[in-house]
Amino acid sequence: MTPFLSNDFLLMNETAKTLYHDYAAKMPIIDYHCHIDPKEIYEDRRFENIAQLWLGGDHYKWRIMRSNGVAEEYITGSAPDREKFQKFAEALPRAIGNPMYHWCHLELKNYFGYEGVLNAETAQQVWDLAEKRLAEDPKMSARGLITGSNVMMVGTTDDPCSDLKYHKLLKEDGFEVAVCPSFRPDPALNLHKAGFNAYIEKLSAASGIKIESAKDVCKALSQRIDFFHENGCRAADHGLDYVMYQPATDEEIEAAFQKALKGEALTKQEIEGYQTALLLHCGREYARLDWAMQLHFSCMRNPNSRRFATLGPDTGFDCMAVTDSCAALYSLMDAWEKEEKLPKTILYSLNPADDQWLDTLLGAFQSSQIPGKIQHGSAWWFNDNKVGMINQLTSLANLGILGNFVGMLTDSRSLLSYARHEYFRRILCNLLGTWVENGEYPADIPFVGSLVEDICTNNAKRYFNL
Amino acid sequence: MTPFLSNDFLLMNETAKTLYHDYAAKMPIIDYHCHIDPKEIYEDRRFENIAQLWLGGDHYKWRIMRSNGVAEEYITGSAPDREKFQKFAEALPRAIGNPMYHWCHLELKNYFGYEGVLNAETAQQVWDLAEKRLAEDPKMSARGLITGSNVMMVGTTDDPCSDLKYHKLLKEDGFEVAVCPSFRPDPALNLHKAGFNAYIEKLSAASGIKIESAKDVCKALSQRIDFFHENGCRAADHGLDYVMYQPATDEEIEAAFQKALKGEALTKQEIEGYQTALLLHCGREYARLDWAMQLHFSCMRNPNSRRFATLGPDTGFDCMAVTDSCAALYSLMDAWEKEEKLPKTILYSLNPADDQWLDTLLGAFQSSQIPGKIQHGSAWWFNDNKVGMINQLTSLANLGILGNFVGMLTDSRSLLSYARHEYFRRILCNLLGTWVENGEYPADIPFVGSLVEDICTNNAKRYFNL
Amino acid sequence: MTPFLSNDFLLMNETAKTLYHDYAAKMPIIDYHCHIDPKEIYEDRRFENIAQLWLGGDHYKWRIMRSNGVAEEYITGSAPDREKFQKFAEALPRAIGNPMYHWCHLELKNYFGYEGVLNAETAQQVWDLAEKRLAEDPKMSARGLITGSNVMMVGTTDDPCSDLKYHKLLKEDGFEVAVCPSFRPDPALNLHKAGFNAYIEKLSAASGIKIESAKDVCKALSQRIDFFHENGCRAADHGLDYVMYQPATDEEIEAAFQKALKGEALTKQEIEGYQTALLLHCGREYARLDWAMQLHFSCMRNPNSRRFATLGPDTGFDCMAVTDSCAALYSLMDAWEKEEKLPKTILYSLNPADDQWLDTLLGAFQSSQIPGKIQHGSAWWFNDNKVGMINQLTSLANLGILGNFVGMLTDSRSLLSYARHEYFRRILCNLLGTWVENGEYPADIPFVGSLVEDICTNNAKRYFNL
Repeated sequence: MTPFLSNDFLLMNETAKTLYHDYAAKMPIIDYHCHIDPKEIYEDRRFENIAQLWLGGDHYKWRIMRSNGVAEEYITGSAPDREKFQKFAEALPRAIGNPMYHWCHLELKNYFGYEGVLNAETAQQVWDLAEKRLAEDPKMSARGLITGSNVMMVGTTDDPCSDLKYHKLLKEDGFEVAVCPSFRPDPALNLHKAGFNAYIEKLSAASGIKIESAKDVCKALSQRIDFFHENGCRAADHGLDYVMYQPATDEEIEAAFQKALKGEALTKQEIEGYQTALLLHCGREYARLDWAMQLHFSCMRNPNSRRFATLGPDTGFDCMAVTDSCAALYSLMDAWEKEEKLPKTILYSLNPADDQWLDTLLGAFQSSQIPGKIQHGSAWWFNDNKVGMINQLTSLANLGILGNFVGMLTDSRSLLSYARHEYFRRILCNLLGTWVENGEYPADIPFVGSLVEDICTNNAKRYFNL
Repeated sequence: MTPFLSNDFLLMNETAKTLYHDYAAKMPIIDYHCHIDPKEIYEDRRFENIAQLWLGGDHYKWRIMRSNGVAEEYITGSAPDREKFQKFAEALPRAIGNPMYHWCHLELKNYFGYEGVLNAETAQQVWDLAEKRLAEDPKMSARGLITGSNVMMVGTTDDPCSDLKYHKLLKEDGFEVAVCPSFRPDPALNLHKAGFNAYIEKLSAASGIKIESAKDVCKALSQRIDFFHENGCRAADHGLDYVMYQPATDEEIEAAFQKALKGEALTKQEIEGYQTALLLHCGREYARLDWAMQLHFSCMRNPNSRRFATLGPDTGFDCMAVTDSCAALYSLMDAWEKEEKLPKTILYSLNPADDQWLDTLLGAFQSSQIPGKIQHGSAWWFNDNKVGMINQLTSLANLGILGNFVGMLTDSRSLLSYARHEYFRRILCNLLGTWVENGEYPADIPFVGSLVEDICTNNAKRYFNL
Repeated sequence: MTPFLSNDFLLMNETAKTLYHDYAAKMPIIDYHCHIDPKEIYEDRRFENIAQLWLGGDHYKWRIMRSNGVAEEYITGSAPDREKFQKFAEALPRAIGNPMYHWCHLELKNYFGYEGVLNAETAQQVWDLAEKRLAEDPKMSARGLITGSNVMMVGTTDDPCSDLKYHKLLKEDGFEVAVCPSFRPDPALNLHKAGFNAYIEKLSAASGIKIESAKDVCKALSQRIDFFHENGCRAADHGLDYVMYQPATDEEIEAAFQKALKGEALTKQEIEGYQTALLLHCGREYARLDWAMQLHFSCMRNPNSRRFATLGPDTGFDCMAVTDSCAALYSLMDAWEKEEKLPKTILYSLNPADDQWLDTLLGAFQSSQIPGKIQHGSAWWFNDNKVGMINQLTSLANLGILGNFVGMLTDSRSLLSYARHEYFRRILCNLLGTWVENGEYPADIPFVGSLVEDICTNNAKRYFNL
């Protein structure tokens, strides 16, 4: 029996161990897509206790608690931090097989030096230990956690209207880790959602471009893209409910935009016509600047309207959706490709049933511009678990070139989640190590090790022009 | 090499063996969803031979025979029992990897003490042995098979019009195992299917409520729900071709109902409007009485119309469907939740491609009412096999709390199918045992054992208020 | 550690080894569905170098190269053969986990006696070796490769208008391997695609039937079916973008056909009405002659229109699609079955998300005509890899009778791809061997071996009336 969370956690054979310890472990982390607030990094935020650190904003943990019948008071409510932590500690051991169990214990081990188990009985001990470390250890701050995790680059997620103040300050400050913004223009594309008009005004102010037409929205976004580019941005991210492709004339697009401004009801075709046009425009701009474009889709946002009304978005109620995105995505990629303006693209579906057709799609749009120009993003959100990662890696290996994969991202709001890069690397090394051990790939360890290093760091470094 | 069907069948390591033999094996069975006729139990039915027992009504076995090219005469036709059994014995060994192979041999071992293999050559020996045991062993009756299998509760499936005569008789009789009805009102919801008018008359008679409107159907169902509740029912079951959510006004619902009564053709919208309203009504009633609501969907009923014309329903021709149920299910759950009338719910799709989004959906509707209020039902029907179970358990573990799972049900017409609970438990214990052995969960055997006991029995006992 | 590509490649236990070496390895290959040109076989084509042999027409390899950022010049362009091979040799080692890695090394071992690794450094050595063998070894010709691979039957894919000249010549020539045509009438069904009118004229000429109506198309196809039958054809193949079922009146079908002839735009309903009618007609004809009908679906053809414009079809850009084929396929099968004119049918979806409902569908249409009348085709194209094969075999085993499976086909344009039968057989033997070793099936090796032999050869021999 292998002890829990040993040094060889998830590494089931000698080759896997060698690949992890001798190749993967030392590689710097490029966390090119996360949701950490750059202000927290600049101000080098510290935390009072583990509840603040773990339960303050992590909707993965809130889900676990709700699934164990914990009342909202102890989740997002006003219960004392210590009681919230107790409820979480009671729920966690029942979540056998859940990646949260592994993430939490990896974090306790890596950041707090705690090698025991967290449960109802040990919660007080963990609480005390964490409180002491958070208060006393100078490295337990935002910057300390990042540098202590061997991070080379942090890619935040930013609104096009942002002045990128904290990114600039961090640069001026000479912070040793690159903190780069990512461009996420969803609000400018969602003309059918609440707040669109207000957002257009905000975008107008930020860009200095008076916005009176859809064309003006494009101009304003281009202005922001150039501004982001000057400030180190090399990637954009679009969160699409589903992928649409609805070609429309300029007149139709403008008409839809004017209706939206007037608050008139829009047809699905009008919405999609505008969205398609804006998305195409953005993609062309990313291609111009050699950015990487990320497209995320098949998320069901806020399905529980009663909870949404009281708790708002991003509180742990979002889910996977089944969407009709396949044919549209082929058409969308083709539209850019026809103009020779297809940017580097990373595709993510939240629904793993889409993995295999996605992996075949990549192969239809690759080019000699860069190896692996079109990527299938790492197992993401609900798929960010051992089985999800193995399936994504295996499907990509079967249908493309795994050695060109840009690898893991956390998509996380937490400063401790670099442990999830370790988790990914262990799973990757075990998969490749098992193939070698089983005689499915030659035991040329230095070469397989170089592929591991590429997937851990080098491919992303090259892909994002770091 | 592990011998076939040994005491450690499917238990591939020491922890798995301990979890099964020391924890799972002794737990009583709560078979909360089956199709056994309560009359058979009350009358303590006996069987003349193994063909009657095995091939009398088991469409899983009929499928195996048809897939081996056996003529219908030997399946549902008039061939002698012994010849039918021979045809089945010839087909079975070719079905390598099919759960039927395991179920049959587990049943032969557990109920007949036969530890050999069933094939064309041994069929006579098995036939003779079974005939003798069925005739001579007093325990080889309906009641004996149930009590001998350590069953604590049998949940039958019953028409709302049923007088529950045999459930009452069994209670009066003091039968030691709880035989509880389940409420399955499908015919009252399917206003577009043959026999609707006749069913409404039957429901009217059973409830004593004159039914002249959709509102009256709701009243009648409420009357039956109360009647079922008084007779020990704690669960309902809806078999939906697909999940629909079509809000409609009272006028529209009544208009659809009147058209149906007159035999007029209905639009899809009309059908779904009525069905949605009825389903919402039922759910509210289940919430009122703290019942568990089961929703089954994505079954393709009777796709072979030539065979349906001669053999009727439930004869082994039903299949998996791909349906557009995802968005509708979110909306339906939300509709109840908005009113704070969402009952405890168990969701089952026949299509395993739905497993993962379903497991995320659970997390959006949990509550502090009970841990694991919203459940993903056990791998069901076509998924009731080793791979199907492992996939369902793993997906649930990844995306929710496996320790709160209410576990296995047979959905079976057969009195021997309690062997499938053993099958499930072995697979469960091997999965958890393997995680422990691989260092993915601490080797706290008593705690993991308690999770096993919860999943085998305790969670369901609590969930169904037994 | 198992050495790479040893004699026991992919065989992870003793039973697997026995099943492969003692049962599978010796069985003749029935490659009932490929795309080899019968002219190449008749003329006993030879190759100058390994680039011609490997990279001349294999779009799987072109995909690998494009995914590694290789410029088109080195793929389908005018770069020298040696340089093309170098680019491929550089890409291959990065494709860890891709079946291409295994196929290439199996081919180098089996046909060239090369047991080393192919990469940038060894490319020259492999080039030289291959050049020598291709020039000197008399067996390195089309016929030599086929007979040297223990092939019993080659099923080519042929246009209904073909005169089957080379099939006839091969027969006259007394070539020891049966080279049978397959009937693929897609162009006659696709009335909405470019070239339909020209094809109808060609079909008219080939059949000697003046085609002025859809009925005439049916007559002409029937004439060609009889002609193909006389020339040894026993199978047909339909490549459907998706499965449609749109019943239409004779008048509607004729009207659609006339519109197509005039080049007028057709509605989706008109297209599908004609296609459904033609497909039903063909199926009836296949049933009349006891042919096997193959239906392939869910392929996204030519999604990259810029590359399609320059490179044409079948150049490595086709992908998996998600299509709405489920309900239609049930209806289509039922339409034939109702008339008792359902032919033997092999179903293939390119999207593995369809595997499970397909495997249940089989069971609804089996008959006593032949065991396993309705088949789920082997893991195909993008699924032709270790995981894809295991998933297809396991799903089939769970939901049907694996022992009646007709087994592997290459669907390949390459004369070396018989190595993929070896690949399939190793995977099959390892799967069955593992079940036996784990105690999930009795260790009756001769019987399990007989199932292996059936799946390798005997079932297909019987199914295709060879």
